[in-house]
Amino acid sequence: MFISFEGIDGSGKSTQARHLAETLRQSGREVVLTREPGGSEGAEEIRRLLVEGGGERWSPETELLLFMAARRDHVERMIGPALARGEIVISDRFADSSRVYQGLARAENRQLVEELHRLVIGIEPQITFVIDINPETSLARGKSRGGTEDRYESLGLEFQQRLRAGFLALSREFPERIRVIDGSGSEDEVARRVLAALP
Amino acid sequence: MFISFEGIDGSGKSTQARHLAETLRQSGREVVLTREPGGSEGAEEIRRLLVEGGGERWSPETELLLFMAARRDHVERMIGPALARGEIVISDRFADSSRVYQGLARAENRQLVEELHRLVIGIEPQITFVIDINPETSLARGKSRGGTEDRYESLGLEFQQRLRAGFLALSREFPERIRVIDGSGSEDEVARRVLAALP
Repeated sequence: MFISFEGIDGSGKSTQARHLAETLRQSGREVVLTREPGGSEGAEEIRRLLVEGGGERWSPETELLLFMAARRDHVERMIGPALARGEIVISDRFADSSRVYQGLARAENRQLVEELHRLVIGIEPQITFVIDINPETSLARGKSRGGTEDRYESLGLEFQQRLRAGFLALSREFPERIRVIDGSGSEDEVARRVLAALP
Repeated sequence: MFISFEGIDGSGKSTQARHLAETLRQSGREVVLTREPGGSEGAEEIRRLLVEGGGERWSPETELLLFMAARRDHVERMIGPALARGEIVISDRFADSSRVYQGLARAENRQLVEELHRLVIGIEPQITFVIDINPETSLARGKSRGGTEDRYESLGLEFQQRLRAGFLALSREFPERIRVIDGSGSEDEVARRVLAALP
């Protein structure tokens, strides 16, 4: 089983991905917890090109190609082999992030994402949890984290609001796969909502 | 005018690209001399991921996506603006290198190169010079250069022979655009052949 977590920065999706991995491990399952961009050795090196530097470092199209290169490596060397061993893979972000981020950067790029995904990635998670939260709350969480990986978080509140709308629109486009989880409240409260939505 | 030089490692194509740039500058033209992978600030950073490390560092598909990301950046930020200013652009390698290298790595990837090229690159040089040389000669030249960018040169003589055949096959596929230049003899002799083949 392949599960992804999506959502805007600071939504708590990474925490929830970790939480679900622990819960499933406690029930005796083998779980690989991974993330994008990155998740494999090569993809983590590509990640550094993506998350550091200013907002104008790459055009939306170049950025998309770098994400696709990282995802291809991640699928080939981490996700694919783990699924083949019968393990559960939980990824903090996957292709839906490209759909939402790139579609916002330039509307016609949403189609480009789909064509590239079909050509070089192919797989989708069986379940995707979108952790939904008010961007004002998430931005405050993001800022408190610090570090150098601030390229997206520096894009501001209005951008995060458009991202949130993008994830919600995507959930209506893929209603079978994407489950929107209310991300407000405590970590344990949200974790219970995730577990309840697990098939 | 957009001109590219192609050929196997050590064929002398970089020397010939430089030579042609100087000749055209002496005749009063503005010339931008560039190279792939790289040629723009971002693409040079992607280049480091591509040329360093062992032959198994990336799968052919991930490698292709990295090349496409570098090329997109190169076209957007270097080649496109120079052509728009009316300058001549000479690039040491361009899309034909992807066609030949990727097609050799996996035959069905030749089609993937064309699809990705159509989706995210689009432009072709008006003229491409393939500097053709015996791989035994070129391998000896390559080895004498040293440095860390030895990923392709380490692939051996048989691989270089297949690359040479790949470039020659490509020249038959694009006879209007690609001119094969005999790369044997002195630098000046080869440069005269290039000039004679310039329209």
